[in-house]
Amino acid sequence: MHRSQLAGFIIDCQRGSMHEAADFWSQALGFPRQHTKDPSEANYELLQTGPNNLHVELQNVDHESRVHIDIETDDIDAEVDRLEKLGAKRIEAIKGWVVMQAPTGHRFCVVRPQRANFEDEANQWPD
Amino acid sequence: MHRSQLAGFIIDCQRGSMHEAADFWSQALGFPRQHTKDPSEANYELLQTGPNNLHVELQNVDHESRVHIDIETDDIDAEVDRLEKLGAKRIEAIKGWVVMQAPTGHRFCVVRPQRANFEDEANQWPD
Repeated sequence: MHRSQLAGFIIDCQRGSMHEAADFWSQALGFPRQHTKDPSEANYELLQTGPNNLHVELQNVDHESRVHIDIETDDIDAEVDRLEKLGAKRIEAIKGWVVMQAPTGHRFCVVRPQRANFEDEANQWPD
Repeated sequence: MHRSQLAGFIIDCQRGSMHEAADFWSQALGFPRQHTKDPSEANYELLQTGPNNLHVELQNVDHESRVHIDIETDDIDAEVDRLEKLGAKRIEAIKGWVVMQAPTGHRFCVVRPQRANFEDEANQWPD
Protein backbone atom coordinates (compact mmCIF):
# COMPACT_ATOMS: atom_id res chain seq x y z
CA MET A 1 0.00 0.00 0.00
CA HIS A 2 1.16 3.52 -0.70
CA ARG A 3 -0.37 6.96 -0.49
CA SER A 4 -0.68 10.06 -2.65
CA GLN A 5 -2.64 13.27 -3.05
CA LEU A 6 -2.65 16.52 -5.00
CA ALA A 7 0.32 18.49 -3.65
CA GLY A 8 -0.46 21.71 -5.49
CA PHE A 9 0.73 23.42 -8.61
CA ILE A 10 3.85 25.04 -9.93
CA ILE A 11 3.74 28.23 -11.97
CA ASP A 12 6.52 27.66 -14.51
CA CYS A 13 7.85 31.02 -15.69
CA GLN A 14 9.99 31.22 -18.80
CA ARG A 15 13.35 32.94 -18.30
CA GLY A 16 12.06 36.03 -16.56
CA SER A 17 12.86 37.72 -13.27
CA MET A 18 11.74 35.38 -10.50
CA HIS A 19 11.31 38.39 -8.24
CA GLU A 20 8.92 40.16 -10.60
CA ALA A 21 7.04 36.94 -11.27
CA ALA A 22 6.71 36.22 -7.56
CA ASP A 23 5.64 39.80 -6.84
CA PHE A 24 2.84 39.54 -9.36
CA TRP A 25 1.53 36.11 -8.34
CA SER A 26 1.92 36.82 -4.64
CA GLN A 27 -0.26 39.93 -4.93
CA ALA A 28 -2.66 38.45 -7.47
CA LEU A 29 -3.40 35.41 -5.27
CA GLY A 30 -2.92 37.15 -1.91
CA PHE A 31 -0.23 34.73 -0.71
CA PRO A 32 2.86 36.27 0.93
CA ARG A 33 6.23 35.44 -0.62
CA GLN A 34 8.43 33.13 1.37
CA HIS A 35 11.81 34.70 0.78
CA THR A 36 14.86 32.48 0.80
CA LYS A 37 18.51 33.48 0.77
CA ASP A 38 19.71 30.06 -0.35
CA PRO A 39 21.36 30.72 -3.75
CA SER A 40 20.68 27.12 -4.83
CA GLU A 41 17.00 28.05 -4.63
CA ALA A 42 17.30 31.11 -6.90
CA ASN A 43 15.12 29.44 -9.55
CA TYR A 44 12.26 28.86 -7.11
CA GLU A 45 9.88 31.06 -5.13
CA LEU A 46 7.49 29.45 -2.69
CA LEU A 47 4.25 31.24 -1.84
CA GLN A 48 2.82 30.98 1.68
CA THR A 49 -0.61 29.40 1.31
CA GLY A 50 -1.05 28.48 4.98
CA PRO A 51 -0.84 25.15 6.81
CA ASN A 52 -2.62 22.22 5.12
CA ASN A 53 -3.26 24.24 1.99
CA LEU A 54 -1.88 23.42 -1.42
CA HIS A 55 1.77 23.91 -2.22
CA VAL A 56 2.04 26.81 -4.71
CA GLU A 57 5.48 27.60 -6.08
CA LEU A 58 7.04 29.50 -8.96
CA GLN A 59 9.83 27.98 -10.97
CA ASN A 60 12.16 29.55 -13.54
CA VAL A 61 12.16 27.37 -16.68
CA ASP A 62 13.55 27.34 -20.21
CA HIS A 63 10.38 26.01 -21.85
CA GLU A 64 7.25 28.12 -22.38
CA SER A 65 5.42 29.44 -19.32
CA ARG A 66 2.74 27.07 -18.00
CA VAL A 67 1.14 25.76 -14.84
CA HIS A 68 1.80 22.15 -13.86
CA ILE A 69 0.25 19.93 -11.23
CA ASP A 70 2.31 18.09 -8.59
CA ILE A 71 1.16 14.83 -7.01
CA GLU A 72 2.86 14.02 -3.69
CA THR A 73 3.48 10.47 -2.50
CA ASP A 74 5.30 8.41 0.12
CA ASP A 75 6.44 5.95 -2.59
CA ILE A 76 7.43 7.53 -5.90
CA ASP A 77 8.03 4.24 -7.75
CA ALA A 78 4.67 2.79 -6.69
CA GLU A 79 2.86 6.00 -7.57
CA VAL A 80 4.52 6.20 -11.00
CA ASP A 81 3.44 2.57 -11.60
CA ARG A 82 -0.13 3.40 -10.56
CA LEU A 83 -0.25 6.43 -12.88
CA GLU A 84 1.24 4.45 -15.79
CA LYS A 85 -1.59 1.93 -15.40
CA LEU A 86 -4.04 4.83 -15.67
CA GLY A 87 -2.44 5.81 -18.98
CA ALA A 88 0.24 8.36 -18.05
CA LYS A 89 3.78 8.13 -19.47
CA ARG A 90 6.99 8.48 -17.52
CA ILE A 91 9.10 11.22 -19.13
CA GLU A 92 12.17 11.60 -16.91
CA ALA A 93 13.47 11.47 -13.36
CA ILE A 94 15.00 14.74 -12.05
CA LYS A 95 16.71 14.76 -8.67
CA GLY A 96 14.08 13.38 -6.30
CA TRP A 97 11.00 13.59 -8.53
CA VAL A 98 9.59 12.14 -11.74
CA VAL A 99 8.09 14.07 -14.67
CA MET A 100 5.11 12.36 -16.31
CA GLN A 101 2.67 13.14 -19.12
CA ALA A 102 -1.07 12.60 -18.77
CA PRO A 103 -3.18 11.06 -21.58
CA THR A 104 -4.60 14.60 -21.92
CA GLY A 105 -1.13 15.88 -22.84
CA HIS A 106 -0.41 17.72 -19.59
CA ARG A 107 3.02 17.36 -18.00
CA PHE A 108 2.91 16.84 -14.24
CA CYS A 109 5.34 15.76 -11.51
CA VAL A 110 5.33 13.05 -8.87
CA VAL A 111 7.08 14.43 -5.79
CA ARG A 112 7.73 13.61 -2.14
CA PRO A 113 5.20 14.79 0.46
CA GLN A 114 4.99 18.60 0.66
CA ARG A 115 1.77 19.32 2.54
CA ALA A 116 1.32 19.20 6.32
CA ASN A 117 -1.90 17.16 5.99
CA PHE A 118 -0.31 14.30 4.01
CA GLU A 119 -0.35 11.78 6.86
CA ASP A 120 -3.96 12.51 7.76
CA GLU A 121 -5.57 12.99 4.39
CA ALA A 122 -3.66 11.42 1.47
CA ASN A 123 -5.44 8.70 -0.50
CA GLN A 124 -4.42 5.09 0.12
CA TRP A 125 -3.78 2.81 -2.86
CA PRO A 126 -3.23 -0.96 -2.82
CA ASP A 127 0.05 -2.01 -4.52
CA MET B 1 -13.60 47.29 -0.85
CA HIS B 2 -13.88 44.01 -2.65
CA ARG B 3 -12.65 40.48 -2.05
CA SER B 4 -10.87 37.72 -3.96
CA GLN B 5 -8.94 34.52 -3.50
CA LEU B 6 -7.54 31.60 -5.47
CA ALA B 7 -10.58 29.61 -6.61
CA GLY B 8 -8.64 26.68 -7.99
CA PHE B 9 -7.50 25.51 -11.37
CA ILE B 10 -8.99 24.27 -14.59
CA ILE B 11 -7.44 21.42 -16.56
CA ASP B 12 -8.02 22.52 -20.15
CA CYS B 13 -8.12 19.44 -22.40
CA GLN B 14 -7.80 19.83 -26.14
CA ARG B 15 -10.64 18.25 -28.12
CA GLY B 16 -10.56 14.85 -26.44
CA SER B 17 -13.14 12.76 -24.70
CA MET B 18 -14.16 14.58 -21.54
CA HIS B 19 -15.11 11.25 -20.01
CA GLU B 20 -11.67 9.73 -20.56
CA ALA B 21 -9.97 12.91 -19.40
CA ALA B 22 -12.09 13.05 -16.26
CA ASP B 23 -11.53 9.35 -15.58
CA PHE B 24 -7.79 9.84 -15.68
CA TRP B 25 -7.61 12.98 -13.57
CA SER B 26 -10.21 11.75 -11.09
CA GLN B 27 -8.18 8.61 -10.41
CA ALA B 28 -4.80 10.34 -10.61
CA LEU B 29 -5.77 12.95 -8.02
CA GLY B 30 -8.14 10.76 -6.01
CA PHE B 31 -11.12 13.12 -6.44
CA PRO B 32 -14.48 11.51 -7.37
CA ARG B 33 -16.16 12.72 -10.55
CA GLN B 34 -19.24 14.83 -10.07
CA HIS B 35 -21.41 13.54 -12.89
CA THR B 36 -23.89 15.87 -14.49
CA LYS B 37 -26.61 15.05 -17.00
CA ASP B 38 -27.03 18.67 -18.07
CA PRO B 39 -26.10 18.63 -21.79
CA SER B 40 -25.12 22.31 -21.65
CA GLU B 41 -22.35 21.19 -19.30
CA ALA B 42 -20.96 18.53 -21.69
CA ASN B 43 -17.69 20.48 -22.07
CA TYR B 44 -17.06 20.54 -18.32
CA GLU B 45 -16.35 17.95 -15.64
CA LEU B 46 -16.14 19.03 -12.03
CA LEU B 47 -14.06 16.96 -9.60
CA GLN B 48 -15.19 16.62 -5.98
CA THR B 49 -12.39 18.03 -3.87
CA GLY B 50 -14.39 18.40 -0.65
CA PRO B 51 -15.90 21.41 1.10
CA ASN B 52 -13.62 24.46 1.37
CA ASN B 53 -11.05 22.90 -0.92
CA LEU B 54 -10.01 24.31 -4.25
CA HIS B 55 -12.30 24.12 -7.23
CA VAL B 56 -10.78 21.65 -9.74
CA GLU B 57 -12.53 21.25 -13.06
CA LEU B 58 -11.82 19.89 -16.54
CA GLN B 59 -12.80 21.85 -19.60
CA ASN B 60 -12.91 20.80 -23.25
CA VAL B 61 -11.03 23.43 -25.31
CA ASP B 62 -9.88 24.07 -28.90
CA HIS B 63 -6.47 25.46 -27.93
CA GLU B 64 -3.61 23.31 -26.68
CA SER B 65 -4.03 21.44 -23.39
CA ARG B 66 -2.92 23.41 -20.36
CA VAL B 67 -3.75 24.16 -16.74
CA HIS B 68 -5.07 27.61 -15.87
CA ILE B 69 -5.65 29.33 -12.55
CA ASP B 70 -9.02 30.85 -11.57
CA ILE B 71 -9.29 33.79 -9.14
CA GLU B 72 -12.74 34.18 -7.58
CA THR B 73 -14.18 37.53 -6.53
CA ASP B 74 -17.33 39.26 -5.38
CA ASP B 75 -16.64 42.17 -7.80
CA ILE B 76 -15.24 41.16 -11.18
CA ASP B 77 -14.71 44.71 -12.48
CA ALA B 78 -12.86 45.80 -9.34
CA GLU B 79 -10.72 42.66 -9.34
CA VAL B 80 -9.83 43.07 -13.03
CA ASP B 81 -8.81 46.67 -12.26
CA ARG B 82 -6.66 45.50 -9.34
CA LEU B 83 -4.94 42.87 -11.48
CA GLU B 84 -4.36 45.34 -14.34
CA LYS B 85 -2.57 47.62 -11.87
CA LEU B 86 -0.34 44.65 -10.97
CA GLY B 87 0.58 44.27 -14.65
CA ALA B 88 -1.95 41.76 -16.01
CA LYS B 89 -3.82 42.38 -19.29
CA ARG B 90 -7.53 41.93 -19.87
CA ILE B 91 -7.99 39.58 -22.85
CA GLU B 92 -11.75 39.05 -23.14
CA ALA B 93 -15.01 38.71 -21.25
CA ILE B 94 -16.82 35.37 -21.70
CA LYS B 95 -20.28 34.93 -20.22
CA GLY B 96 -19.82 35.80 -16.55
CA TRP B 97 -16.03 35.76 -16.32
CA VAL B 98 -12.97 37.59 -17.66
CA VAL B 99 -9.86 36.03 -19.23
CA MET B 100 -6.61 37.81 -18.34
CA GLN B 101 -2.91 37.34 -19.08
CA ALA B 102 -0.28 37.63 -16.36
CA PRO B 103 3.05 39.44 -16.94
CA THR B 104 4.56 35.93 -16.83
CA GLY B 105 2.52 34.99 -19.92
CA HIS B 106 0.01 32.72 -18.17
CA ARG B 107 -3.65 33.03 -19.07
CA PHE B 108 -5.98 32.96 -16.06
CA CYS B 109 -9.63 33.75 -15.35
CA VAL B 110 -11.44 36.04 -12.93
CA VAL B 111 -14.67 34.31 -11.91
CA ARG B 112 -17.51 34.61 -9.41
CA PRO B 113 -17.11 32.92 -6.01
CA GLN B 114 -16.88 29.11 -6.29
CA ARG B 115 -15.55 27.95 -2.92
CA ALA B 116 -17.58 27.47 0.25
CA ASN B 117 -15.00 29.36 2.31
CA PHE B 118 -15.13 32.55 0.24
CA GLU B 119 -17.03 34.62 2.81
CA ASP B 120 -14.76 33.57 5.67
CA GLU B 121 -11.36 33.52 4.04
CA ALA B 122 -11.10 35.60 0.87
CA ASN B 123 -8.62 38.48 0.88
CA GLN B 124 -9.99 42.01 1.24
CA TRP B 125 -8.71 44.75 -1.07
CA PRO B 126 -9.37 48.50 -0.82
CA ASP B 127 -10.89 49.97 -4.01
